Amino acid sequence: MIAERIEALRTEMRKRGIAIYLIPTSDFHESEYVGDYFKARQYLTGFTGSAGTAVITMKEAGLWTDGRYFIQAKRELAGSPVTLYCMGEEGVPTVKEYVERSFEIGDCLGFDGRVVNAKAAEEYEKIAEKKKGRIASDEDLMGLIWKERPKLPRNAAFILEEKYAGTGTQDKLKALREQMSKKQADIHILTSLYDIAWLFNIRGRDIPHVPVVLSFAVITMEESIWFVQQEALDDKVLSYCQENHIAIRPYEAVYSYAAEILAGKRVLLDPAIVNDRICRSLGKEVHVIHEKNPTESSKAIKNKTELSNIRNAHVKDGVAFTKFMYWLKTHIGTEELTELSAAKYLEQLRSEQELFLDLSFDTISAYGPNAAMMHYTAVPEANATLYPEGFLLVDSGGHYLDGSTDITRTIALGRLSREAKLHFTTVCRANLNLSAAKFLHGCRGSNLDILARGPLWNLGLDYKCGTGHGIGYLLNVHEGPNSFRWRTTQAHGDGCVLEEGMVTTDEPGVYLEGKYGIRIENELLCKKAEKNEYGQFLEFEIITYAPIDLDAILPEEMTAAERGLLNNYHKMVYEKISPYLEPEEQEWLKEYTRAVY
Amino acid sequence: MIAERIEALRTEMRKRGIAIYLIPTSDFHESEYVGDYFKARQYLTGFTGSAGTAVITMKEAGLWTDGRYFIQAKRELAGSPVTLYCMGEEGVPTVKEYVERSFEIGDCLGFDGRVVNAKAAEEYEKIAEKKKGRIASDEDLMGLIWKERPKLPRNAAFILEEKYAGTGTQDKLKALREQMSKKQADIHILTSLYDIAWLFNIRGRDIPHVPVVLSFAVITMEESIWFVQQEALDDKVLSYCQENHIAIRPYEAVYSYAAEILAGKRVLLDPAIVNDRICRSLGKEVHVIHEKNPTESSKAIKNKTELSNIRNAHVKDGVAFTKFMYWLKTHIGTEELTELSAAKYLEQLRSEQELFLDLSFDTISAYGPNAAMMHYTAVPEANATLYPEGFLLVDSGGHYLDGSTDITRTIALGRLSREAKLHFTTVCRANLNLSAAKFLHGCRGSNLDILARGPLWNLGLDYKCGTGHGIGYLLNVHEGPNSFRWRTTQAHGDGCVLEEGMVTTDEPGVYLEGKYGIRIENELLCKKAEKNEYGQFLEFEIITYAPIDLDAILPEEMTAAERGLLNNYHKMVYEKISPYLEPEEQEWLKEYTRAVY
Repeated sequence: MIAERIEALRTEMRKRGIAIYLIPTSDFHESEYVGDYFKARQYLTGFTGSAGTAVITMKEAGLWTDGRYFIQAKRELAGSPVTLYCMGEEGVPTVKEYVERSFEIGDCLGFDGRVVNAKAAEEYEKIAEKKKGRIASDEDLMGLIWKERPKLPRNAAFILEEKYAGTGTQDKLKALREQMSKKQADIHILTSLYDIAWLFNIRGRDIPHVPVVLSFAVITMEESIWFVQQEALDDKVLSYCQENHIAIRPYEAVYSYAAEILAGKRVLLDPAIVNDRICRSLGKEVHVIHEKNPTESSKAIKNKTELSNIRNAHVKDGVAFTKFMYWLKTHIGTEELTELSAAKYLEQLRSEQELFLDLSFDTISAYGPNAAMMHYTAVPEANATLYPEGFLLVDSGGHYLDGSTDITRTIALGRLSREAKLHFTTVCRANLNLSAAKFLHGCRGSNLDILARGPLWNLGLDYKCGTGHGIGYLLNVHEGPNSFRWRTTQAHGDGCVLEEGMVTTDEPGVYLEGKYGIRIENELLCKKAEKNEYGQFLEFEIITYAPIDLDAILPEEMTAAERGLLNNYHKMVYEKISPYLEPEEQEWLKEYTRAVY
Repeated sequence: MIAERIEALRTEMRKRGIAIYLIPTSDFHESEYVGDYFKARQYLTGFTGSAGTAVITMKEAGLWTDGRYFIQAKRELAGSPVTLYCMGEEGVPTVKEYVERSFEIGDCLGFDGRVVNAKAAEEYEKIAEKKKGRIASDEDLMGLIWKERPKLPRNAAFILEEKYAGTGTQDKLKALREQMSKKQADIHILTSLYDIAWLFNIRGRDIPHVPVVLSFAVITMEESIWFVQQEALDDKVLSYCQENHIAIRPYEAVYSYAAEILAGKRVLLDPAIVNDRICRSLGKEVHVIHEKNPTESSKAIKNKTELSNIRNAHVKDGVAFTKFMYWLKTHIGTEELTELSAAKYLEQLRSEQELFLDLSFDTISAYGPNAAMMHYTAVPEANATLYPEGFLLVDSGGHYLDGSTDITRTIALGRLSREAKLHFTTVCRANLNLSAAKFLHGCRGSNLDILARGPLWNLGLDYKCGTGHGIGYLLNVHEGPNSFRWRTTQAHGDGCVLEEGMVTTDEPGVYLEGKYGIRIENELLCKKAEKNEYGQFLEFEIITYAPIDLDAILPEEMTAAERGLLNNYHKMVYEKISPYLEPEEQEWLKEYTRAVY
C-alpha cells in the first residue's frame, strides 16, 4: 500500500518533471501537531510519529525523524520501501544535505509552498540555484494522490474570558503595536496559530489537543484582520470580534491580501514560521523585516492571573494523577489492566476536575520496553497488559480553562532490578538538581541543562531530546522560546534568556531499547530570587504535584542534599493534594511522600 | 599630570577637528598584553590594568574596564579627571554605546587605525555614517603627546625545536594551506603574534611574559612571508627561515604588501584581529573572506608531543609550588615576609627547574583584602606584609621549553573565620565539580560553566569573569577558542566545542571587597572517554599538581563524592610531586594531601 502511494506520487512527479519531492509534517502555520487533513507524510510513509519529513526521489523514499521516534519509526517502516534517516546520528545527512546531494544539475525540486516555511524554502532555492535547477512549489501533489483525504478542520471557536487570560486582547494588541513601532513595521503578518489564539484570547479545536483556530492574522497600526473559516465563528465570537475591532476575512484571502500590500510598506514577519507561499505573494518592493513574532516572548512570560490559574490547575491535575497512582498501585495484580485501560482511567479522573476541557496531548501509557520509545502511543491492536513487575511510564496532561499541564511519572508496578532502581534514582536526581538551580539573570536553558543531564552522562547514558520545553496556556504544550537543551540547534538556537514568569518542563529520562523507559517530568516556574551586587538571581518553583515513586528509589544513591530536595518536594505534594483525597488515598499518599534517609 | 596629558591630547584633537578620540589597549596585533611602547592608555589615564579602553571627548575622559579590575581601577583613578565605566554592570553603556551617544551630527571620531581591529573600526564607521560624520584613523595622536615613549620592541627571536613543538613548521604550513584551499583563499593575512609564533615554531621576547616576535605573516599557496624587524633575527633564525622557505620583509612593509594585492584575489583574514589600517590598504576589488584564523583551533588542540611535554612541565611547576607552600607555611610568623618577597621566592624556585625560561605572567601575590582585586599586582610602594592569619592568594606560572603553566592557590597563613573557610570550601567544590565533568562531544564551555559557578550562585555569590581560559604552549597564557564562561559575549561568542587535546583552566573564586579573595586554579586537559550509542563522551584530566590547602577546608560542607574527588586529587599530587622533594617537604606534603572525611 505504501509502495503504491509512493509510486502514485512519482507518477505525478514525472508528469511535472519533478525529480525530488518533499513532504514535511506541517500545516500552513508551521504547527508542531497537525489536524488529520495535514497528515500527508503519515499517509505516504506509514510512520505515525508527530514529527518527520519524507523525501521522495525516483530511486529512494526517505524518512527523517528525531531521537524521540527512532525505535517507533524503525518498527513502523519495517518491510516498507521507506528508508529511515535518524536525525542527529553520526554520519546521517540532514534533509537539506540529502536534497543537495540528490539534486542533479537542472533538476526540479517540488513541495507545497504552504507547508514549507519561507526560511526553509529559501535554503532550497539556493540549492536549486547552485544546481541550475528550479523549485516547483505551487502544487500540492499529495492532494492529487490522497483519495479519501479528511476535510480541512473548521471547529467552533470560543472566547477565553479575561479571568482566565489575565490580559484583554485590546491591551495585547496595544503592546504588540508598540513593539511594531519600535521596529518601524507598518504591517505584521502573524500565522502561528498559538500566537493568534493568545493575541485574540480566542481558542478552538482545530488540532487535536491543541485548542487553536485555523487562521491567519494581520495587524496594522489601524486594523486587526483575522483570516478564518467563517463556519467556525458563532454570534458570540462575531460580536466579540466586532467589539475588539477585529475584522473577519476568509481563510484563503491571506494570499491575495499579501499580494496587494503596497510597495514601500514595512512588513514584520518570522520567515521560520510564515509559509513560503505568503512570502512569495508579497510584491518585490515590499520591505520585509525578518524577526521573531513579538507575541512569542510575550506569551511565554505568564501574567499574574495566568500564574495563579496555572497553580490551581496543577493542584487539580495532581489530585487526578495521585488518585490514579493510588488506583494503579492497589489494583495491579488484582484485575486485568492494560496500557489503554490505565490511560482511560486517568482521563476519567482528569475529566472529573473543574474547568477541564481536554487532554493536553495523547496520553503516553507505556509499559516495560514500550516506554523506551519516548513518544509511544498504545493502540487497541498493540496494547500491552500490565503485570505486577517493571515500570509503567505515563506522560499526560490536561487542558483546563485555568491552564494546561504536562506531567510524567514512571510507576513501579512490582519487582524491579537493581539497575532499574539505580536508573530511576538517577533520573530523579537529575530532575531535582535542575529544579534546585539558582542562577543569575542572563542564563539560558543551555547553561542549565547539564544540571539534569550530568548525572546520566556520568553513567555513560543520555536522552536524545531536550530536557524541557516551555508550555502554553491552553495552547500547544510545547511552546517556545524557553527550553532546556544543551545543543545549539537551528530550530531552537541556543534558547532564550530565562525570565521570571516562564514555565518550562524538567523531564530527564533513561531509555533502554528492549528494557524500559524512565522519565520524571515536573513543570518549573521561573521566579526572582535575591538581587545583589552580582545581579538578579533567579530560581524555580516546582508547580507539578504528584509523588515520585519511592518504591523505585535507592536513597543511598542520593546525596543528603538530594534526599532533602526529594523530601521537601514530597512534603509540598502532601500538603497541596491530600485535602482533596479520600481517607484511604490520603493514607497512601502519606506513605508515598514520607521522608527518606 | 593625568589632567595635563588629557589636555595635551585635546589640543591635538582640536587642531584636527576630532571630537572623540579612542585609546584602546592593543598593539598592532590585537594582543591581550602589550609591550611598553603600546601602553598609551595607561600613560594617558594612569590605570595600570592589562585591559581597558579610554574615550576622550572635550567634556569627559572615560575609562572602560572589566570585572577583574573594578576595584583596582577605582583606586588608581581616584582623584583623577577620568571617569570609570564598569563594563557589564547594569546601566553602564558599552564603549560603542557611549561613542554613539557622544557623537554629534557631523563629528569626527579619531583613533590610530593600527591599534583598532577592522571589525570594531567598521562598527565605528557605521556610527559615523549614521551621524553624517567621519573617522580619522591615519594618525597616532598619542605618539605626538607621549614625549618619552619607549621604543618599539625588537628582541632576539629563537627557534622552538621540534622536540618541543611536536610538529614542524612545514607540516603546519601544509595543513594551513589545505584549510585555505577549502575556503578557496589565495592569500592569508595572519597578524596574531601567537599564531605566527606557533605556525613558524619561533618564539621571542617582544611582550613581557609572552614569548612572541612582533611581526606579521602572509601565507599564499606558494609563499610564506614574515614581516619582521630584521634586528630581531640572528643567523640561526635566518638560515632556519631559508630552510623553511619563509621570506623575510620589513615589519612595516605589510601595509604596502596589502595595498598591492591584485584585484580578484581572495584574501582570508580575521577582521576581529587584523588591524583596520591593513584592511583599509586592501584594494576595493580584493575579495576578503572573513573567517577565524585557521591556526587558532589548530594550536588549541595540543599534539601528543606537546601534551607529554606539558605534563612534564606541570610536574616541575608543581614541585616549585609545593616547595613554596611548604616554605610559606613553615616561615610565616618566624620572619618578615611580604607579598613581593613571597613572589620572589616562588620565582626563584621555578627558575631552578629544568628548561625554565620565564614567568608566564606577572605573579599575583595578594594578601588579605588585596586579593579581592582579581588581578592585583604588588609593587614596592604598596607591598603588604604577611601575618600569620588570613589568606595569601598566589596566581602564577612558568614558561618552560616544554610548556607553560598557570596555577592559583589560596593559602591559609593562620587563623581564618568560619565564613572564610566556608567560602574556600565552596570554591574548592566548584573547582572539583567542573574537573569531574563527563559530557558528550558537542558541549561548549557555556554548557559546563555552571558546574563551577553553581555552588557559588547557591550562596548568592559570583565571580565577574569566566571560569577558565585556554592556555598557550610557550605563548600567551590566555588563548582561545576554548574557555569556560556562561555568558555569550561578543568577544568570546558562546565558546567553541571542547575537543580532545584542549587545555583549559578551571579557576572559580570568591572576591569580597575589603575582606579577601579566594581562587583555586587547575588546568584541565580534555580527553576522550567512552564512545557508545549516545555519542563520544569526553572528560578532563587535571594536569596541575599542588595541594589545595586543607587548613581552609571544612570537610563537613562537602558531599562524600566531593571529598572523594579531593582525596583522589591529593593522592595524585603526592605521587607526582613527592619524589622531587626533600624529606621534610615530603613529610609536610603527606600531611597536606591526607584524605579528609
